[in-house]
Amino acid sequence: MIDVALFGAGRIGQIHAGNLVRQPDVRLKYVIDINADAARALAARFGAEVTTTERALADGAVRAVLIAASTDTHSDLIARAVSARKAIFCEKPVDLDLARARACAAAVTAAGVTCQIGFQRRFDPTFNALKERMTAGAIGAPELLVITSRDPAPPPVAYIAKSGGIFSDMLIHDFDICRWILEDEVVSVFAAGSCLVDPAIAEAGDIDTTAVTIRTRRGRLCQINTSRRAAYGYDQRFEVLGARGLLQAGNHRPTEVTLAGGDGIHSDKPEAFFLERYRAAYTAEIAHFFAALQSGTPVRCTIDDAVKAQELADAATRSWREGRIVALQPA
Amino acid sequence: MIDVALFGAGRIGQIHAGNLVRQPDVRLKYVIDINADAARALAARFGAEVTTTERALADGAVRAVLIAASTDTHSDLIARAVSARKAIFCEKPVDLDLARARACAAAVTAAGVTCQIGFQRRFDPTFNALKERMTAGAIGAPELLVITSRDPAPPPVAYIAKSGGIFSDMLIHDFDICRWILEDEVVSVFAAGSCLVDPAIAEAGDIDTTAVTIRTRRGRLCQINTSRRAAYGYDQRFEVLGARGLLQAGNHRPTEVTLAGGDGIHSDKPEAFFLERYRAAYTAEIAHFFAALQSGTPVRCTIDDAVKAQELADAATRSWREGRIVALQPA
Amino acid sequence: MIDVALFGAGRIGQIHAGNLVRQPDVRLKYVIDINADAARALAARFGAEVTTTERALADGAVRAVLIAASTDTHSDLIARAVSARKAIFCEKPVDLDLARARACAAAVTAAGVTCQIGFQRRFDPTFNALKERMTAGAIGAPELLVITSRDPAPPPVAYIAKSGGIFSDMLIHDFDICRWILEDEVVSVFAAGSCLVDPAIAEAGDIDTTAVTIRTRRGRLCQINTSRRAAYGYDQRFEVLGARGLLQAGNHRPTEVTLAGGDGIHSDKPEAFFLERYRAAYTAEIAHFFAALQSGTPVRCTIDDAVKAQELADAATRSWREGRIVALQPA
Amino acid sequence: MIDVALFGAGRIGQIHAGNLVRQPDVRLKYVIDINADAARALAARFGAEVTTTERALADGAVRAVLIAASTDTHSDLIARAVSARKAIFCEKPVDLDLARARACAAAVTAAGVTCQIGFQRRFDPTFNALKERMTAGAIGAPELLVITSRDPAPPPVAYIAKSGGIFSDMLIHDFDICRWILEDEVVSVFAAGSCLVDPAIAEAGDIDTTAVTIRTRRGRLCQINTSRRAAYGYDQRFEVLGARGLLQAGNHRPTEVTLAGGDGIHSDKPEAFFLERYRAAYTAEIAHFFAALQSGTPVRCTIDDAVKAQELADAATRSWREGRIVALQPA
Repeated sequence: MIDVALFGAGRIGQIHAGNLVRQPDVRLKYVIDINADAARALAARFGAEVTTTERALADGAVRAVLIAASTDTHSDLIARAVSARKAIFCEKPVDLDLARARACAAAVTAAGVTCQIGFQRRFDPTFNALKERMTAGAIGAPELLVITSRDPAPPPVAYIAKSGGIFSDMLIHDFDICRWILEDEVVSVFAAGSCLVDPAIAEAGDIDTTAVTIRTRRGRLCQINTSRRAAYGYDQRFEVLGARGLLQAGNHRPTEVTLAGGDGIHSDKPEAFFLERYRAAYTAEIAHFFAALQSGTPVRCTIDDAVKAQELADAATRSWREGRIVALQPA
Repeated sequence: MIDVALFGAGRIGQIHAGNLVRQPDVRLKYVIDINADAARALAARFGAEVTTTERALADGAVRAVLIAASTDTHSDLIARAVSARKAIFCEKPVDLDLARARACAAAVTAAGVTCQIGFQRRFDPTFNALKERMTAGAIGAPELLVITSRDPAPPPVAYIAKSGGIFSDMLIHDFDICRWILEDEVVSVFAAGSCLVDPAIAEAGDIDTTAVTIRTRRGRLCQINTSRRAAYGYDQRFEVLGARGLLQAGNHRPTEVTLAGGDGIHSDKPEAFFLERYRAAYTAEIAHFFAALQSGTPVRCTIDDAVKAQELADAATRSWREGRIVALQPA
Repeated sequence: MIDVALFGAGRIGQIHAGNLVRQPDVRLKYVIDINADAARALAARFGAEVTTTERALADGAVRAVLIAASTDTHSDLIARAVSARKAIFCEKPVDLDLARARACAAAVTAAGVTCQIGFQRRFDPTFNALKERMTAGAIGAPELLVITSRDPAPPPVAYIAKSGGIFSDMLIHDFDICRWILEDEVVSVFAAGSCLVDPAIAEAGDIDTTAVTIRTRRGRLCQINTSRRAAYGYDQRFEVLGARGLLQAGNHRPTEVTLAGGDGIHSDKPEAFFLERYRAAYTAEIAHFFAALQSGTPVRCTIDDAVKAQELADAATRSWREGRIVALQPA
Repeated sequence: MIDVALFGAGRIGQIHAGNLVRQPDVRLKYVIDINADAARALAARFGAEVTTTERALADGAVRAVLIAASTDTHSDLIARAVSARKAIFCEKPVDLDLARARACAAAVTAAGVTCQIGFQRRFDPTFNALKERMTAGAIGAPELLVITSRDPAPPPVAYIAKSGGIFSDMLIHDFDICRWILEDEVVSVFAAGSCLVDPAIAEAGDIDTTAVTIRTRRGRLCQINTSRRAAYGYDQRFEVLGARGLLQAGNHRPTEVTLAGGDGIHSDKPEAFFLERYRAAYTAEIAHFFAALQSGTPVRCTIDDAVKAQELADAATRSWREGRIVALQPA
């Protein structure tokens, strides 16, 4: 039996809790949240106990922590969990400060603890099936990747102001997809951006529409186009070209109903937002984490992957701010 | 809190158990199965108790029974549950013998107990969304319904021999869809059929490929085409035409991956079979049943609906066997 | 060089004229029409001469006639062209009277002249590609054929009253598709029908919505569903199931534009009506006719095919009127 | 009647000839080609006369010239046609040398003659319908354009060596689409490129895979991804995002056949290459040119549009060669 301490009883914490209790031989032992009501409600629902960070980490029975608290707590909680030698599942990002994220990753590596970061898209059934077919040779080596990543509507400007910027907040997932699919390290990033959705976003020092180009060591190319607004829903597609063909990952729809009327053929918009679109992915990443713990195999999405995605986000931010192509340090 | 007794610990019983324990204020109290091992395993998994039919029905705390045992037990268990004044959720069919099914339905009505039959397709997200749009007037009144219903592969001939025949075993769901979508009662049925998949099916007195035509009181028409074999998976589509347009319910796919290669564009086959295709529907029908119990509202798919579907199956069987159009009794 | 006489300068005659002048070594020599203005205009456009039936058939240089005049002239013109030993391309139907159609076909066979009937759908690129794949073994032998055939809107009731009824006027094309795809002769027909679109159609003795079931010697089944009204355009689809899979022929769209908006995903309706949908087919059938003449090979769609489609239309009409299954004579 | 002189009797010249003779009141009078056999064959087919450039331009009856000769003759023939005051339809590019192209455009403007450049994609039914819907306000102002433009296979290296490079030879059409759809002038271009298809292309000083980012005055963004190789055919798509939604132009398929088999659902690859894909566009651009001449209205795709597309191609080439973002001169 794996006993787990969950940090963060908010929306994503609740999702992870619901998924982890369904894993065989996994038990939610503790819930920790500065919001006592939230902690109590979640603990009650799954038969867990509300406690403090100190006591949770001090409990030798706790083999794993699940960090779903606010972003600014991540690297500190990771560090403390490393010291306590717990296996770690942590939401992205490790830390908006790249140096601290790197230090955190180094500590994880030095201690040899398992640490999976919540890039759930790698566990999406569609994305995952695409990757498997690519690995099986369906299109040969990847050459060109095009990622379309658009949110249905921008978050509140107050959120944006503290988000670390669109590249760290929104495209970090796309940067991870880029590395995962192109199977190569990045040598340069160019990011163009505009504020076309809401001038208040520009006033907050950010942009809402971006066009990023990435080049890898082997000359593979990736284009990412994003917007904070897609009137038709959450648009999450990518396609990868190889010598022998093209693999495309399309949007998921709530239903397969089509209406043919006098004014055309109408079908469903994509799933509304990330909680709907990636529901299966959230389930699968938690199952993967505990299965890896139980079998002693490595996790698919490590803290080093997270650091590299953050490096791309930082490079893209500099590229956009300084209007130039940014070369990445050799690894 | 609603305490529930579950009859039948087989595959479909396990699915229902998993769904009912997720309902708020619903508890699985008893599991009853002639296979003691199966009963014990299922009871253990959900913290329930293995018991006998007599004791489960005698327990006044049990408000609802869920009948997922073998077909030949359904009408008897319904009758006993009616006597014990339990709310009933029962898998289809009520009884392969139409007279017994009718008697059962009459007893339910006389007692005034809630009884929902497991035509899960009415709860499928796609089918349900289609029905809602039709009800909202998207195409006007329905005129013509075309149902495509094909299994991936025939069941063992031993199963077929005891199944009641393709119309009772397989098309009964389509007959229910027909009544649900056309919103009218049937006046005549014509069923053509052939054995094209496996001669052993003909030797067992059945067919594997059918083409049924149904006409309703208002002259609405329905065509159902079925096969016991579809090499590409479980094919579950229908479309309904009205004065203002067409509503189509398409197949669901496991993923949205597309491969474009030198020999064409390739996408996923439909979901493999009914457990995959109707997973959400199984969840939704159980949620509906308990929500109806809790709120005191009627259930969407009654035992009378089940009897009427069985009448259509019987009429289709006679039509096919006798090579003639069969008129239905006025209701 | 093949000199051609064209009977009928109306809409379909103009289409055929435009297609035949594009064939290598084919020349439009004569146009014959009781409407002298229409004949003159068409002749002028393509450098042809207006003449009479007698003179056109008496001209030894004329090797082929193309009959696109009104339906009631077809069998007489075919008979006269046979006597004059001209190759014949004639629009469907041969004759609404089945006995006269059969006599006409017998005369053609006895004389050994080439005679192609204008079932243009056999030459549609999509339908033709489907047939080729089926012949190449893509799905094995055909078992079940479902044809959806719906007009965008009913013709004037005055037209319907003289049309020979929906089965002869509209479904005759579908009956030809049925024989062409199932590659087997029909043993029985059942046709259900309703008048749901316009009561004036019932007053004219016809129906507007039909559901036909056909069974062949080998037990293959075909369902045809039709309506005189589809608010979303001309709906022309069919699908054929075999042991190894399914082949589907979908609608053609004017453009491949998709609009994703706040209320869903919208794409084009199908092509508006038969002139648009079957434009390529009209071109291909004329090219086929003259290529067959020039190479001395048989035509793909003979007068016997047309007689058999008419037999099915007559059987379906009787089935609908008499409310019974109609068996066809052995060939 | 408009008499036309056609320069160039090669493949594209033949297509234009076939289209122009179908225009009302338009006649092909002369064919000029250094390949005398090709000129004779084409002239004979359409009843035209083989002649020299001098005599064609000296013939006062010739109102329009159609330039489909080799690229290096374009600007000279345009200049001579301007002097002779003929209306001009010329294939792209005006001149691979941007200064000469600009001089040519200035001469056209000064003389006030009609001059349409053959960017046929603006006349494609799908692209044109998309543009019309955008103009009608379907998505609001354009914000983000993503163009996918991939050839089925690279041309011979000998061709590439003389082509002016991938940006001038292949992406010039995409640059024109970019300006046409974004409805704004470009301020900067960044082009990344790799040679991943065939090392011989790199040896010829070119690349085969590109990723271009364009920014306009109003901050609109465009990403273009291209490859000289797409194993699945000619891939020609674009999509444009606005505040109210997304418009997508998809590929065209030869047929609408779908095969559902044991290994998935298979549909047609896109049309094979530009002659098939843009067949309707070639017809429409010629019809547009002569309709404009006859009505005295401006043409939709002017020599200035061509110069601006060439400016983008030059800027992209510099960006790729020098590894930097290239700013465009203010117009």
